[in-house]
Amino acid sequence: MAEHYVEKSPADFFYENRAIAGFDNPVRAAYSAIRELVENALDACEENGILPDIEVTVERGESGGEWIIKVKDNGSGIPAEVIPECFGKVLFSSKYGNVQRRGRFGMGGTMAVLYGQITTNKPVHVRSSVGDGFEAEMDIKIDIQRNMPIAIPPPEKAMKKSDKPWHGTEVTLYIEAEYPKARQKVYEYLKHTAVVAPYMNLRFKDPYQELIFTRKTEKLPAKPKEVRYHPEGVDLETLRRMIANSKARTITGFLTSSFQRLGPQTAKKIVEKARLENKNPRRLSDKELLKLYKAMKNTNYQAPDPSCLSPLGVELLKAGVIKEFNPEFAEAVQRPPRAYQGHPFIVELAIAYGGGVPATPDFLLFRFANKIPLLYDEYSDVSSRVIRQINWSRYGIKPDMPIAIFVHVVSTKIPFKTLGKEYIAYIPEIAREIEIGLRELARKLSLYLSKKKAAMLAERREKTLLKYAKWSSALISEVLLVEEEEVYNLYVRLVRSKTGGVKIGGEDTDS
Amino acid sequence: MAEHYVEKSPADFFYENRAIAGFDNPVRAAYSAIRELVENALDACEENGILPDIEVTVERGESGGEWIIKVKDNGSGIPAEVIPECFGKVLFSSKYGNVQRRGRFGMGGTMAVLYGQITTNKPVHVRSSVGDGFEAEMDIKIDIQRNMPIAIPPPEKAMKKSDKPWHGTEVTLYIEAEYPKARQKVYEYLKHTAVVAPYMNLRFKDPYQELIFTRKTEKLPAKPKEVRYHPEGVDLETLRRMIANSKARTITGFLTSSFQRLGPQTAKKIVEKARLENKNPRRLSDKELLKLYKAMKNTNYQAPDPSCLSPLGVELLKAGVIKEFNPEFAEAVQRPPRAYQGHPFIVELAIAYGGGVPATPDFLLFRFANKIPLLYDEYSDVSSRVIRQINWSRYGIKPDMPIAIFVHVVSTKIPFKTLGKEYIAYIPEIAREIEIGLRELARKLSLYLSKKKAAMLAERREKTLLKYAKWSSALISEVLLVEEEEVYNLYVRLVRSKTGGVKIGGEDTDS
Repeated sequence: MAEHYVEKSPADFFYENRAIAGFDNPVRAAYSAIRELVENALDACEENGILPDIEVTVERGESGGEWIIKVKDNGSGIPAEVIPECFGKVLFSSKYGNVQRRGRFGMGGTMAVLYGQITTNKPVHVRSSVGDGFEAEMDIKIDIQRNMPIAIPPPEKAMKKSDKPWHGTEVTLYIEAEYPKARQKVYEYLKHTAVVAPYMNLRFKDPYQELIFTRKTEKLPAKPKEVRYHPEGVDLETLRRMIANSKARTITGFLTSSFQRLGPQTAKKIVEKARLENKNPRRLSDKELLKLYKAMKNTNYQAPDPSCLSPLGVELLKAGVIKEFNPEFAEAVQRPPRAYQGHPFIVELAIAYGGGVPATPDFLLFRFANKIPLLYDEYSDVSSRVIRQINWSRYGIKPDMPIAIFVHVVSTKIPFKTLGKEYIAYIPEIAREIEIGLRELARKLSLYLSKKKAAMLAERREKTLLKYAKWSSALISEVLLVEEEEVYNLYVRLVRSKTGGVKIGGEDTDS
Repeated sequence: MAEHYVEKSPADFFYENRAIAGFDNPVRAAYSAIRELVENALDACEENGILPDIEVTVERGESGGEWIIKVKDNGSGIPAEVIPECFGKVLFSSKYGNVQRRGRFGMGGTMAVLYGQITTNKPVHVRSSVGDGFEAEMDIKIDIQRNMPIAIPPPEKAMKKSDKPWHGTEVTLYIEAEYPKARQKVYEYLKHTAVVAPYMNLRFKDPYQELIFTRKTEKLPAKPKEVRYHPEGVDLETLRRMIANSKARTITGFLTSSFQRLGPQTAKKIVEKARLENKNPRRLSDKELLKLYKAMKNTNYQAPDPSCLSPLGVELLKAGVIKEFNPEFAEAVQRPPRAYQGHPFIVELAIAYGGGVPATPDFLLFRFANKIPLLYDEYSDVSSRVIRQINWSRYGIKPDMPIAIFVHVVSTKIPFKTLGKEYIAYIPEIAREIEIGLRELARKLSLYLSKKKAAMLAERREKTLLKYAKWSSALISEVLLVEEEEVYNLYVRLVRSKTGGVKIGGEDTDS
């Protein structure tokens, strides 16, 4: 054989291509490691209905570039027997269900462990308790070539009685990285996370400062539920798997029992369109499966069931924006649920104008995905691209006005373009919702701006007219022999009725 | 157990996260599929010292959105027994060696097959011959959940005698995609590929047009050689693996036999620095390995051996730029070889000014990586970021001048940020070389521009002075009673000596 063919383990692959997972360089690695651990901590709480109490410390390690990152949560804890895989095996996760979560790739935490290992040669140290009075404590390394965890001690020997009962997980990671250059981004990340997770307590400490985020509400958002696939955009592979997992004997039975928003009538129409009456779904030929797929594709469905999603809501989003910028004008909008490739999603957007919003050459854009702030590669993100497509001048809006735009996408599956979760891919369905939402906000801002402009013009006109009020009143009162005050009041009323009754400060009317 | 933990196959993972691999949406999928197949075709030729003859056809399939992409090369062919894995298994490749190649992830081709399968339910059709008078022909599908290929017929039954001997591979892919919206990018991709692979014949045909690229040279670039790792930036995992694969009994022996550019003297210094004299490398403790790693990290090495790389060269790059734009000024530069994370790389850059270069609000940037044109996500690319960091006004250069910048990075491992090869991550070592190269080009362009400006000023001055030459000469000749022509010549010589002797057209001197 002329060439040498090799298969790689997933861990080996991501070790070699770590830029893809957000570990490009020592600066980004520091940021990504902290972010991945914090997100795992938040998920471990929220998914189990626990109000998050998170502690994060970043300390200098024993040698120059080494840093120790410790993240402790009060989540549900990880059963001892799966701790090694959770931290030492790529593509292993509790997060693959059809429900909204921060993490989903099954690799963020493990990539942090891997990066720590290849730069410091040290294992990650994990303590965890599921709240049964016992806790597991172990060191974990990764056999990268085999994608296998090495736990010392092994889970069965890692259990001991807790001093006092607790539940949660504490992770201590050793990593060689350029934390000082990454820390501003880390602070920014934490601040924005607090905006979209106001129910979280988080205590952060590094050698430079301490940040404390206190929860503003005791109300955890409704726990998203796992749901069936939505039929919109489902591909052939998913369809094939669903058929294999279904016990239905007819295609209509399969469709109605496997998908949400697909009732008997729609199912019947699909079957007729595909000409597959009286077929057993498990005995479809390749061609017949294709027909079913095409018939499903050319059918319209009701909007997906949003109970698998946990958006922030218009109120909370607007409140967050106002708290952040104290703007002159703020508005938020939530788009109805939609689906792409079978995954339900919701887009929420907000716009803020003036007040504390700085004027920059371009709109300030804040992006969130499943409550994760996205801080890198903004220009390539779907939101950024949609913003560039819109002709803002139609709305009397210019990019250098003091405007901040917030886009939050929640989905059972965010189509990130990179495993480092830097930005969202251009998915036409998502782009469309962002565009509609932005246009709605643009119209509202436009209305506000033109009202403001009209008010300013009216104010100026009124000012000019009122300048002469006293003088004119005196004149008129002399000519008509009526009380000057009466004339003055009449005059002012007249002016105000013409200019729309803008309230004007005392000083101006006196001048 | 409270939660449900699952492991995923790599194929399953990339199926779910296909945006990461460049298959975000039906437009991008069309582009990515064609690109991946063309790159595999080129690699199959170049790596075996064969001048590429590639044929690409894109045709409409049997139903609305279906397209048939056929790519045929005259490369070395694929042995029948590995054809199924090459097209039907993710992370399986002949391309993992330490040598420069276009493809490297071991997944581009398979992702195209996977995307075709989930949208059309059709297998990819492959014909290949290694030139032995026989050829294999089979259909391949992917069992995505198991990451296993399904070949019909299986390799042992897929062989037949060729009508006439040939070598190469022909791939026919069925895919549902929005090709009409992708085609402009496909044309652009092919044109730029032709610029950096002038030794290639490529015939492209789609329903809209035919493009024929004829080779400009019979000279294939020197075949890059596989080389040992360079010690700069090697991480602990690689170090550990190299020790495991080494038969050396001393650390100096291990270092000198395993790395390039690491002689006995440097090895001795490293061992002394790490205080690991008389140690057997295979018996190092974790702490000792860390010491060795740190000592290696704090050592300076000679530049890496470039024989594993196949850059274009300054001549060819400049010629390509001139052919593309016929500019007023063009210059190219190649930086010396460097290494990041143990991977050697070379950066080549060119700049073009004026002539056919259009003036746009920003510099026109053309990016190439291992001879692949990069057409997406320019703003996030390391080159784009370096360009934004440079203070161009220092060089008298403004972004809206008619300037085109070309950056070509070649490496045994391009640190792409996405598997779709959209853009290169910000690796400090690479950024530094790009910056130095750009500054050198900026200085050269700056010099040209100031010379041009000086020449223009001088020309203007000369014009003004010469305007009066005839008149003055006549006057002087009358006063001094000498020949008018003599005075005139003297006068012109005098003016020219002052203004630097700019050549001026006849009309001007006459006026």
